[in-house]
Amino acid sequence: MPVGLKPLSVLHPVAGVRLGTASAGIKKPGRRDLVVMEIPPGANCAAVFTQNAFCAAPVILARRYLAQAAPRYLLVNTGNANAGTGAQGLRDAETCCVELAKLVGCAAHEVLPFSTGVIGEPLPVEKILAGLPEAYAKLSATGWEDAAYGIMTTDTAPKGVSRQLTLHGHAVTITGIAKGSGMIRPDMATMLAYIATDAAVAPQLLQRCLSDAVRVSFNRITVDGDTSTNDACVLIATGRSTLPRVTDSASAVYQTLASAVTEICVELAQAIVRDGEGATKFITIEVNGGAGEEECSRVAYAIAHSPLVKTAFFASDPNWGRILAAVGRSGIADLDLEQVTIHLGETCIVKNGARAPDYTEAQGRQVMSADEIRVGVDLKCGAHHATVWTCDFSYDYVRINAEYRT
Amino acid sequence: MPVGLKPLSVLHPVAGVRLGTASAGIKKPGRRDLVVMEIPPGANCAAVFTQNAFCAAPVILARRYLAQAAPRYLLVNTGNANAGTGAQGLRDAETCCVELAKLVGCAAHEVLPFSTGVIGEPLPVEKILAGLPEAYAKLSATGWEDAAYGIMTTDTAPKGVSRQLTLHGHAVTITGIAKGSGMIRPDMATMLAYIATDAAVAPQLLQRCLSDAVRVSFNRITVDGDTSTNDACVLIATGRSTLPRVTDSASAVYQTLASAVTEICVELAQAIVRDGEGATKFITIEVNGGAGEEECSRVAYAIAHSPLVKTAFFASDPNWGRILAAVGRSGIADLDLEQVTIHLGETCIVKNGARAPDYTEAQGRQVMSADEIRVGVDLKCGAHHATVWTCDFSYDYVRINAEYRT
Repeated sequence: MPVGLKPLSVLHPVAGVRLGTASAGIKKPGRRDLVVMEIPPGANCAAVFTQNAFCAAPVILARRYLAQAAPRYLLVNTGNANAGTGAQGLRDAETCCVELAKLVGCAAHEVLPFSTGVIGEPLPVEKILAGLPEAYAKLSATGWEDAAYGIMTTDTAPKGVSRQLTLHGHAVTITGIAKGSGMIRPDMATMLAYIATDAAVAPQLLQRCLSDAVRVSFNRITVDGDTSTNDACVLIATGRSTLPRVTDSASAVYQTLASAVTEICVELAQAIVRDGEGATKFITIEVNGGAGEEECSRVAYAIAHSPLVKTAFFASDPNWGRILAAVGRSGIADLDLEQVTIHLGETCIVKNGARAPDYTEAQGRQVMSADEIRVGVDLKCGAHHATVWTCDFSYDYVRINAEYRT
Repeated sequence: MPVGLKPLSVLHPVAGVRLGTASAGIKKPGRRDLVVMEIPPGANCAAVFTQNAFCAAPVILARRYLAQAAPRYLLVNTGNANAGTGAQGLRDAETCCVELAKLVGCAAHEVLPFSTGVIGEPLPVEKILAGLPEAYAKLSATGWEDAAYGIMTTDTAPKGVSRQLTLHGHAVTITGIAKGSGMIRPDMATMLAYIATDAAVAPQLLQRCLSDAVRVSFNRITVDGDTSTNDACVLIATGRSTLPRVTDSASAVYQTLASAVTEICVELAQAIVRDGEGATKFITIEVNGGAGEEECSRVAYAIAHSPLVKTAFFASDPNWGRILAAVGRSGIADLDLEQVTIHLGETCIVKNGARAPDYTEAQGRQVMSADEIRVGVDLKCGAHHATVWTCDFSYDYVRINAEYRT
């Protein structure tokens, strides 16, 4: 069960964008596993991809196509990652783009491919091609919810966020969906996320908007520390709203729009952690007082990746010594142990490098018994901060990943 | 159950060293939890300690004392790490040293303290002091086996290795014991290890011998990626054998002795992994063809720390895509994916960045069904290599660490 994840709310259509979802039987029969997303002519599209050196065939192809033209269609399959599949994998991804392009009447390089699922098995191209007509026939402006289901793998719930803003008197919509539950330690973007707005935004500004948002959202979550081979996040600006084209990064309208995009990315990123494999707790780790943001995030990730910390959270055990040990091994130069403080929720547990004098085990147990827990670390050596979200490590994590291919 | 860990063999006495073990009831009654080790006058002693910034009070004190004098006694308690205990923890460790020094008739700074167990709770000084007379009374040259039990925490079996060599016609003995099962990703030494030889070795050479051995043994294992606050490894040379003092690092006698020490450290380090918390598999990860040793170990640790790889091993599932993804995220510059090969045992699973053409799932399953598995990665970009040992991630890992303080 996801931790504190709200049921999918209404996902507002974004003018110009249509989505169609099909059941192609890629891994299991009867499951929605193929999504086509239509982008109108003239829209701009920004994207970020995994930093994993072994990136998947669709990532290689999508990067190449994006450099050639603005995309008109996105093609997403689950059940197979088409990663570790070499030259054949590239040919397979290309075939899928070519066939969808024929069906819709565009160039193959105007179709961006995305895959997620098991690594190292050949892409079942025939099944995907057979599913394309159904997905195409279902293209609809209200297809977001279906698509949120269609991109799920080990996710137990769909993830989508939608906002409607008024900018200078013009209505603007932003809607996004994401998937991901395991192999989550995004290093540019998360597994798969698609966000669209009907605002018009200049291409470079759109990329900046996405990169800024991703840095503090998808790049600040971890379930298991494993960076996927298939991470991708796309932001589309269709320009179909009445709002004049946004071109100035210093303008108030850009700032408001960018804030809304960031908020959506943060909510989607948190949704991934709330539905992390086997998660029973949602943990926020805030590190303040660092000499740099990188240093703060290193400390936060040392805590977030520690199996000992994560199993203590699972057990609701305020075993703060494990948090202390994780901070200590994070490799911060010139860490002044005498200055460091650590909080569990509002309770100070570590002060001057030791247990806070007035801390009691009962206080710790109370904080740890909640589903959502905040860990606060203050390094007291600078003005920077970073926040990372993660979940605990449970029996179900082991079960899900031991049984994944069976 | 430890994986392939042999029952404790005979641990030969080392002339000049005596050990005494007591049950002081530190965490649980009736359990051996206090060890005193006596070192003869004139012996040399080398040591390495944790790199965790939050190192424990006994580590701080042991470092300080070592700089002042050659130690005459080591005092080890389990059940409490005396870490994260601030100024009081330092006073407590000091009190224990002072009281043992009074009992045995030496200076307090000739006693090195070591603690292992739960972090952040006050050291139960009274219990330790009450146990000292029993440990002292039991001091015996044949006390190694008892001591191997006495330093255990979540270990399910004692770990000890002993060798007798003939060097230039002189009989030399080396005996060592170690403990550790969780919070194992040593970064100078493992949790606790004590090795002694009756050879006479010059102090600097002894430190070099230990550091070289630790680099390829205790510093090459991981259970959970968490570097302990209390890691310590000690090598004692009593000089009571008839072998002339070893002073030349280029001599054949030093090389032979150093090789034997390294072999003992490797066997003890492997024993810790074989008895890793919840371990059902013993995994050897060999990375070859790197531009440097550091690069090779980074790749090996990326694999060894991946919860996805570790749960696949637990399930005996040849999910080699997870290994590929871990290599890809390890951050190696200029990795030529087309060149990389990955083997499971003798079976080539990845070639030219994709599944090896003649690999079959049946082959993978056969390798994975064994208790001991070798993963071989060849980066094909240099002549360096590194080997890391680890274990899998099981339901029992979660259980042990969720229940640790209950």
